[in-house]
Amino acid sequence: MYQLPPAQPGMSESEVETPALILDLDAFEFNLDTMARRVAGLGTRLRPHAKTHKSPVVANLQIRRGAIGQCVQKVAEAEAMAWGGVEDILVTNQIVDPRKLARLAALSGIARVALCVDSLQHVALLEAAARTAGVRMSVLVEIDVGSRRCGVPAGEPAVGLAKRIASSRHLVFAGLQAYHGAAQHLRSAVERREAIGKAIAACERTVEGLSRARIPCGIVSGAGTGTFELEAASGVYTELQAGSYCFMDGDYAANLEEDGKPYRTFRHSLFVLSSIMSTARPGQAVLDAGHKAVAIDRGLPTVWQQPELRIISAADEHARMEYPAGRATPEIGERFRLIPGHCDPTVDRFDWYVCVRAGRVESVWPITARGGMQ
Amino acid sequence: MYQLPPAQPGMSESEVETPALILDLDAFEFNLDTMARRVAGLGTRLRPHAKTHKSPVVANLQIRRGAIGQCVQKVAEAEAMAWGGVEDILVTNQIVDPRKLARLAALSGIARVALCVDSLQHVALLEAAARTAGVRMSVLVEIDVGSRRCGVPAGEPAVGLAKRIASSRHLVFAGLQAYHGAAQHLRSAVERREAIGKAIAACERTVEGLSRARIPCGIVSGAGTGTFELEAASGVYTELQAGSYCFMDGDYAANLEEDGKPYRTFRHSLFVLSSIMSTARPGQAVLDAGHKAVAIDRGLPTVWQQPELRIISAADEHARMEYPAGRATPEIGERFRLIPGHCDPTVDRFDWYVCVRAGRVESVWPITARGGMQ
Repeated sequence: MYQLPPAQPGMSESEVETPALILDLDAFEFNLDTMARRVAGLGTRLRPHAKTHKSPVVANLQIRRGAIGQCVQKVAEAEAMAWGGVEDILVTNQIVDPRKLARLAALSGIARVALCVDSLQHVALLEAAARTAGVRMSVLVEIDVGSRRCGVPAGEPAVGLAKRIASSRHLVFAGLQAYHGAAQHLRSAVERREAIGKAIAACERTVEGLSRARIPCGIVSGAGTGTFELEAASGVYTELQAGSYCFMDGDYAANLEEDGKPYRTFRHSLFVLSSIMSTARPGQAVLDAGHKAVAIDRGLPTVWQQPELRIISAADEHARMEYPAGRATPEIGERFRLIPGHCDPTVDRFDWYVCVRAGRVESVWPITARGGMQ
Repeated sequence: MYQLPPAQPGMSESEVETPALILDLDAFEFNLDTMARRVAGLGTRLRPHAKTHKSPVVANLQIRRGAIGQCVQKVAEAEAMAWGGVEDILVTNQIVDPRKLARLAALSGIARVALCVDSLQHVALLEAAARTAGVRMSVLVEIDVGSRRCGVPAGEPAVGLAKRIASSRHLVFAGLQAYHGAAQHLRSAVERREAIGKAIAACERTVEGLSRARIPCGIVSGAGTGTFELEAASGVYTELQAGSYCFMDGDYAANLEEDGKPYRTFRHSLFVLSSIMSTARPGQAVLDAGHKAVAIDRGLPTVWQQPELRIISAADEHARMEYPAGRATPEIGERFRLIPGHCDPTVDRFDWYVCVRAGRVESVWPITARGGMQ
C-alpha cells in the first residue's frame, strides 16, 4: 500500500527517515550519459529495461537521451510506463491470462506494445485477445540463447512459430527476443564473450531461417548491463535491453572489465540509507534495514566507501554490521549508505526514490510500478 | 506504489490475476480460533505481531477474539494499526530518529503506544521527544535472551536502565521485551524447550532485580509461533507476540511437535497463486511468480498438495518447476498455490489479500502497512 515519502526536497540527507532508497543524481546522470554515448557510438538502439527502475520518471530521462522506449516484464509495468508517457513498450515475457492480454490491448490507444511467445498455445491466446479487442498485436518469438528458462530453440522451431504468427490476421511478427540473462554475471570478459558468441550464432541462424522463409524480422532484442557491447557489435542484435546500468549494484560491480581489471564503466547511484539502532553487543552494530529494505538474493549489501565495516546478516528489518577492534563504535542514529547486491528487487521494496545531490534532497520520485506483478 | 486489486469478490479463484496473495479463510479462521482457545487455556495475554500481516483488518479479527492489541516493528506499522482502529500498540524495537519519535508521540491521542530501548542514548532521545510532544512515553527495556541482536544483558544491566527510565519525568517504565527469535525455528521440541528455558531464567533474574529495586514491571513480552506455549507456561512472561500462526509458512511447518511428529497445530492459510507461463523445455514449467512475489530468505516455496512438483529456482519474476517423467506437462495458464518459505516478507510484496473460501473470492483486504519501513 502507498507509503508517504521519507523526505522532502531541501532536506539534508542526514534528515531523511531511514531506511530510504537514495538515488545519487550525479552518479545516476553520469550513467545515463555514459550509456547514451556508448550506444550511439555502437550504432544500436537502446530500449532500457524498466524492471530495474519501475518508474516513468527514469524512463523519460532515458528516452530524452535517445532510448527508443522501454522493456517491461509485466502488464502492470507496461501500464505504469504507458500512463507515464512512454510510447513504445516491449514486454519481454509471455503473458497468458486473457484479462491481462485485454489490459495490454487496451494500451494500444496510447502506446505501441509488443510481447513475446514461445509456443503455439500463446499464439492462440494472443489471437483470441487481439480479435476480442479489435487490434493487431505485435509479437516476438523468444528463443533460448542460453538461459534455459523460456524460449524455443533457435533456428527451425523459432522460424516455424514465426510463420504461424505472420500468417495470422490478428498478429504481426515483430522479431526475436534473445536475452541471455545467465551471461550477465559471468565474472570474466572471456566467459561473457564465449556465452554471448553462442547467443549471436543462435540469432544469426534464426534470422537466416526467417530470411529464407521471407519473413521480415524487424527486431532482435537482448543484452544486459554485463554484455551490451558484445550484442551491439554483433551486427545481428538491433536493440539492447540493459537496465541496471543506471543504478549498478554489488553483483554487476563484481564483474571484471575487458582488460581483466576491476569494474569501472558505471557508478553506484542507488543506495539504501540506513541508521544504527542498537550497539548493545561489543563489535556489532544493528542497522534498521533488513532484507525487507534491501534484496539479498544476490548477496548481502556492502557499506559504501567503508570496506572495514561488514554486513554479516540480514533479518526482515535488521542487519548486523561488524566493525574491527580499535574502530570507534558507530553512534546510535549514525547513517550509512548500503550498496544493494541486486538493484531491481531492492527498488521494488520502496514507493519513493529520494534523489540526492551533494548531500541535499533535490526531489522525490514515485516508483509507480512498485509491486506491479500482474 | 499502490496497485489495483488482482481480483473482485465473487470471482472464482481460477480468475484471479497472478501472482496474487491468497488467504484461505477457512484455514485462517481455524488458526485464529485455535490460538485464541489455547491462549485462554494458558492464562496469558496475546498481542500478535503485525509484522506478519501488516493489515488492521487482520489485527481487528485477532482483537475480536481476545487479543489485547498488536506488536509492530516500525513507526509506519504503528500508524497503520492505530489509523485502522487498534488501540494498544507495542513497538518491539528501538526507534532513534526524532522525526519518527514525534510521529509515534502523535499517535498517543488515539492509541496507547510503547516502545523498546537498550541503551542510555535511547532514553535520552525518548525523553527529548516526549518533552517536545508534551506526552509521557511508555518504555520497555529489551533484554537479549539469546538472539544476540539487540537488547542489554539480563539482570543488573537491564535493572540499571529501568531505574533510569523510572526516574524520568517524561517516561514510564512499562516492562521487558524478551523475544527469542532464534529459538522459533529450532526443529525439535527439546531444543526449543532448552533455548526458551534460558530465556525464562533471564526474565526471572531481571524481574527479581526489578522487584528488589521496587520498580513495578507490568509487561514481560516475548514468544513466537514456534515456542509460545513454553513462554505462556513460564509464569514470568505476561504477553505473547506470536504472529505467523495466522498464516503459517514452510519454515514453521518444518518444526516438529512436542511428540516428535510432523507439525500440525496451525494450518497453511497463505499462498501465492501462480500461473504457468512457459513449458518450452521438457520436464520444466516456468511459473509467473519469482522472488519479487514470494520471499526466498527461508527457502524456496513448495507446491501445495502436489509434492511431486518441485520449485528448483526463483528469479525476480519467474520460478522453475520440475515435474517427474511420466506426469502430464502442466498446461500454460494452469494455476498452482505456492506455500511461501517465510510469510512476513512475502506479505510485504503485495498490496492486497485475495480472501478465498471454497474456491470463490469472498473479499479483498488492503495491506496498508505494506512497505512501511520508516
